[in-house]
Amino acid sequence: MHDARIQRLLKRLSGDKLDALLVTSLPNIYYLSGFTGSTAMLLLTAGKRWFLTDFRYHEQVGKQVRGGYELFDNTGKKLVEDVLPGLPGADKLKRIGFESDHVTHATFEKLSADESHEFCATSGWVEDLRMVKDESEVKLIRESVLLNERIFSELLGLIGPGVTEADLAAEIGYRAMKSGALGVSFSPIVASGANSSKPHAGFSTQELAAGAPLTFDMGVQLGGYCSDMTRTVFYKDCSAEWEQIYGIVREAKDMVTAQLKPGMLGREADAIARGHIAAAGHGEHFGHGLGHGVGIEVHEGPRLAAPSEQKLAAGNVVTNEPGIYLPGEGGVRIEDILLVTADGCENLNTLPTDIQVIG
Amino acid sequence: MHDARIQRLLKRLSGDKLDALLVTSLPNIYYLSGFTGSTAMLLLTAGKRWFLTDFRYHEQVGKQVRGGYELFDNTGKKLVEDVLPGLPGADKLKRIGFESDHVTHATFEKLSADESHEFCATSGWVEDLRMVKDESEVKLIRESVLLNERIFSELLGLIGPGVTEADLAAEIGYRAMKSGALGVSFSPIVASGANSSKPHAGFSTQELAAGAPLTFDMGVQLGGYCSDMTRTVFYKDCSAEWEQIYGIVREAKDMVTAQLKPGMLGREADAIARGHIAAAGHGEHFGHGLGHGVGIEVHEGPRLAAPSEQKLAAGNVVTNEPGIYLPGEGGVRIEDILLVTADGCENLNTLPTDIQVIG
Repeated sequence: MHDARIQRLLKRLSGDKLDALLVTSLPNIYYLSGFTGSTAMLLLTAGKRWFLTDFRYHEQVGKQVRGGYELFDNTGKKLVEDVLPGLPGADKLKRIGFESDHVTHATFEKLSADESHEFCATSGWVEDLRMVKDESEVKLIRESVLLNERIFSELLGLIGPGVTEADLAAEIGYRAMKSGALGVSFSPIVASGANSSKPHAGFSTQELAAGAPLTFDMGVQLGGYCSDMTRTVFYKDCSAEWEQIYGIVREAKDMVTAQLKPGMLGREADAIARGHIAAAGHGEHFGHGLGHGVGIEVHEGPRLAAPSEQKLAAGNVVTNEPGIYLPGEGGVRIEDILLVTADGCENLNTLPTDIQVIG
Repeated sequence: MHDARIQRLLKRLSGDKLDALLVTSLPNIYYLSGFTGSTAMLLLTAGKRWFLTDFRYHEQVGKQVRGGYELFDNTGKKLVEDVLPGLPGADKLKRIGFESDHVTHATFEKLSADESHEFCATSGWVEDLRMVKDESEVKLIRESVLLNERIFSELLGLIGPGVTEADLAAEIGYRAMKSGALGVSFSPIVASGANSSKPHAGFSTQELAAGAPLTFDMGVQLGGYCSDMTRTVFYKDCSAEWEQIYGIVREAKDMVTAQLKPGMLGREADAIARGHIAAAGHGEHFGHGLGHGVGIEVHEGPRLAAPSEQKLAAGNVVTNEPGIYLPGEGGVRIEDILLVTADGCENLNTLPTDIQVIG
């Protein structure tokens, strides 16, 4: 599996007349090797694959890394000054590609100082591969989605008097880790009342507001893959106005699910939901993009947003998360994960989106 | 407080003949404004301070941001193409500093395309300020340290038959969030038996190994500040060999606490512990640096490690974490946080480091 991914990647080397590719992004390193540690680099050539990491991870590399790598100990060593001169054959690598979206300007300046090699910017090579999930990845994402849904369902049973946003947020990572997950895929949002009007609210120590929206935006990281789901429920009561807004968001989301298919551009997917919300008079209350890819990272490609010219393809896994936010009052967002299929899409989430009044 | 920090920072502009500084690192933005969201930029000039963020965070900026900023809505806008031309007076900012350690090569290429402004690399300007904590920061770090210690003490009571590393790891974030923390400051390490020989082990679903080291490396994020503590205990039994190794690590750590003071270089602090461990015959079993700064981020400056020429100053807050790791067998690490004072250092941790056999 890792070998096949590396081979697909290496095919691009010749097009850019590169002798090697230096991979420094940790999610990309995970995709290409299975390594979950916090410090490593890959140096990939047509003939040789080097895995560079320090003392702390040597045992882990032996147990975890797949893809035909040879381990090189770079403890305390600098890439240009110490590592490349010490790698057999590296002097013949004249043009080395690097990941320009993940290498800082400061680091690039150090690479540029190397007179033996020319470092050449690449962008999105591994991310392009990662956007199209294979069957094993879809299986892992499904498992992550199902665990996330189970935890959300359990959380609904905990809602009640005296319960704070933080109380509920704390349960997500806890239950995920007790179920074999690494933890949450992002710091969760549990936002009640006016807090729910902030699309990225986080959580507070305030008790839940009655008669107001309560938004959960949560995900877990299981088997290396992320889930990401949003549900807005209502605590104790739901006004006719909120019920109407909820209905508009739900319709927008369902329209996307019905229409999304390969070949569609990211901006076209976004426009499906945005058009419906705008027609209902809430255009200015939906200020974020419709969705984003999900996989090893909770935010990856492709983007579903007004400026996105990315073309959807079978195997993409994207969120579908329209929302309407009334500043100072509250907001509604509903989010599921869609797998783009040969002729449409499949909703990987299984929980219904019927309006729920709890407590 | 934020205003004073910004003023100290702005003093550096003239030295580099800069008209403005663009701050893009989120921890630096938090330090200079109090903003906790995930997307923002600061543009600081002698006369004007701009806070650039999108729709999702406008409410939050109003409630949270301090330091005399004016909000600029950059929803869907690109810095060079849309934002700078739209900022009143920005056309007069000829030389704009940027954070070269936080801006990617790809983003720098976009900045370079701007013919109206020259973007000039800066490195570590805000980080330099952040290394010297003020009283309010030390107070917050103390609170974070004490919560972390309380949770660790509670964890010891949970150790027993059938308990896994993951079970204990799950409790850390849970208890932190129930106590008002945002969560953990890093994914915790709970490593039993041979796992403890990997300095960055994480946690597994395996049950605790009897008669072997059990290492907890954990921290919480409370009030915007991180804690970071390691304790190695022994489950059920501790051999004479492990007791001896534990003693060496503990002595190394205590020697650092006794000797650390302002003016010392990072490599000199590291050498105190490393010399002791090497003299005891375990030099090759201590493969990582002695410590690192802690504050808004769990890893910041100054570094205490063999290559570090950073000079310690009063107000630095650093970890002191020597260890000895026997590959395939297990390891011992003990870590406290030290505040560098006018003439020495203060251990911010309060828990003893006596050897503990649990269960």
